[in-house]
Amino acid sequence: MTSASRAIAVFDSGVGGLTVFRALRRRLPHESLVYFGDTAHVPYGTKSAETVRRLTRAHLAFLSRRRVKCAVVACNTASAVALDGAALDRTLNGHGPAVPIIGVIEPGVRMALARTRSGRIGVLGTSTTIASGAYQRRLAAAGGVRVTARACPLFVPLIEAGWADHPVARRIAAEYVAPLKAARVDTVILGCTHYPLIKPVLGRVLGRGVELVDSAEAVEMEVERILAGRGLLCRTGSGHDTFFLTDTGGTFPEIARRFLGSPIRRLVRVDTGVDTVRDAVRA
Amino acid sequence: MTSASRAIAVFDSGVGGLTVFRALRRRLPHESLVYFGDTAHVPYGTKSAETVRRLTRAHLAFLSRRRVKCAVVACNTASAVALDGAALDRTLNGHGPAVPIIGVIEPGVRMALARTRSGRIGVLGTSTTIASGAYQRRLAAAGGVRVTARACPLFVPLIEAGWADHPVARRIAAEYVAPLKAARVDTVILGCTHYPLIKPVLGRVLGRGVELVDSAEAVEMEVERILAGRGLLCRTGSGHDTFFLTDTGGTFPEIARRFLGSPIRRLVRVDTGVDTVRDAVRA
Repeated sequence: MTSASRAIAVFDSGVGGLTVFRALRRRLPHESLVYFGDTAHVPYGTKSAETVRRLTRAHLAFLSRRRVKCAVVACNTASAVALDGAALDRTLNGHGPAVPIIGVIEPGVRMALARTRSGRIGVLGTSTTIASGAYQRRLAAAGGVRVTARACPLFVPLIEAGWADHPVARRIAAEYVAPLKAARVDTVILGCTHYPLIKPVLGRVLGRGVELVDSAEAVEMEVERILAGRGLLCRTGSGHDTFFLTDTGGTFPEIARRFLGSPIRRLVRVDTGVDTVRDAVRA
Repeated sequence: MTSASRAIAVFDSGVGGLTVFRALRRRLPHESLVYFGDTAHVPYGTKSAETVRRLTRAHLAFLSRRRVKCAVVACNTASAVALDGAALDRTLNGHGPAVPIIGVIEPGVRMALARTRSGRIGVLGTSTTIASGAYQRRLAAAGGVRVTARACPLFVPLIEAGWADHPVARRIAAEYVAPLKAARVDTVILGCTHYPLIKPVLGRVLGRGVELVDSAEAVEMEVERILAGRGLLCRTGSGHDTFFLTDTGGTFPEIARRFLGSPIRRLVRVDTGVDTVRDAVRA
């Protein structure tokens, strides 16, 4: 298998990364894509940074052993807390050729900085993402920027419960974005792969003239740029899709079908969580 | 260690089982208690029955190896999908003396049947609990009972986000209980360990004359009854508490401190989820 024909991996805690997967599928039709959803541990956004880091490293090592040519960490929480240290590169690169790992924080920050006119930027994300300060630090490093960040722990449950259009969602969104409106931001980073699904409501509560930066959109350009730069883009043929999940019994296949427009074919469950408990006791 | 001096285990997916833990601590002050919260996988209520079953079995086997004298499955979802089969008893009893496993479904059902006057009973629970039909089947088996069940997937996130008293919680609760009100139930089972924390709101939206059955309260009596029947109650001394969590970095210690009224002392992280992924690949 030549390097270019290897697959691009998209890693997420659950279904949210499908926004990135769909964007890549449309932009790069010749590429094979591998999706990894840690549906047994979802959500990451309310778990500790340490646990998110451990899970992300283990799952990226798994993907590395499948010889993917690059790995996109679509999950903002994982990107925020697991992509800073050098330990992650070692994990992934210790199992085959050096593989670029692309998180969603940097592309989102670059797009927000390119779009803001006033320099007043808002960030919405999970509790763990916002607490990590990953977006805030990178935006502040640009200089001349005022950042207002807000954790929105109810957005993911609302979206997963199918209530993204419910009046309650608007009420909750209005409360979450109040500090961003008070700060008169002109650009808001949707710092969670789920949030594009609540974009209509956010657009209404934020009002006209506020630009929403979608990480799925930001990262697809980054992936193309990086692969092109390494001569790793696939230019012919049609790619195939494979899905790895840690819990396959749930609603993922149905959500993916609705979201991608066709049923998913290759679905594999990856075991997790059970044997290790036994090991911990024996140790 | 004599049998009676062994600890009582309380297993839950996260913090919700603390309602059961607190009830047992107050009722049985001489007992040592072990709490196991699967905080790395929480919530169970939106995961597949198969995954909840696998996790529950593994964690109960862990507790069994710690030679507890009985295990309370405080999590309604785990009770609903993992306590029916004989496989579970084998798992737990294969690692030491036969250990009674006490779920929350049976005690809740018995209490609801004892309290209802009209025979019209409502059940609120997570998506997986309600989909399992565990409460509905057992209530229907009593005969002369009409059951109205409703999944409430947003209650746990609302409670964990600290929004149990927010006007939005009342709005969501009103929508969830609408079919129960239409069915004119006189008794409602709170089929999730979190739900007692949203009791004031539920009381308001359901109105007077509707009895709320709390599984924590129902199960503490069951535990005392079963242990007394086997001569396993501890009558002297003061018990100590140990907490096992699969993710210790989160807000559990703070929530537990507020909830139990004093800081938790013995807290142990149990590893999970990482090595097994590697095993799955090697296999």
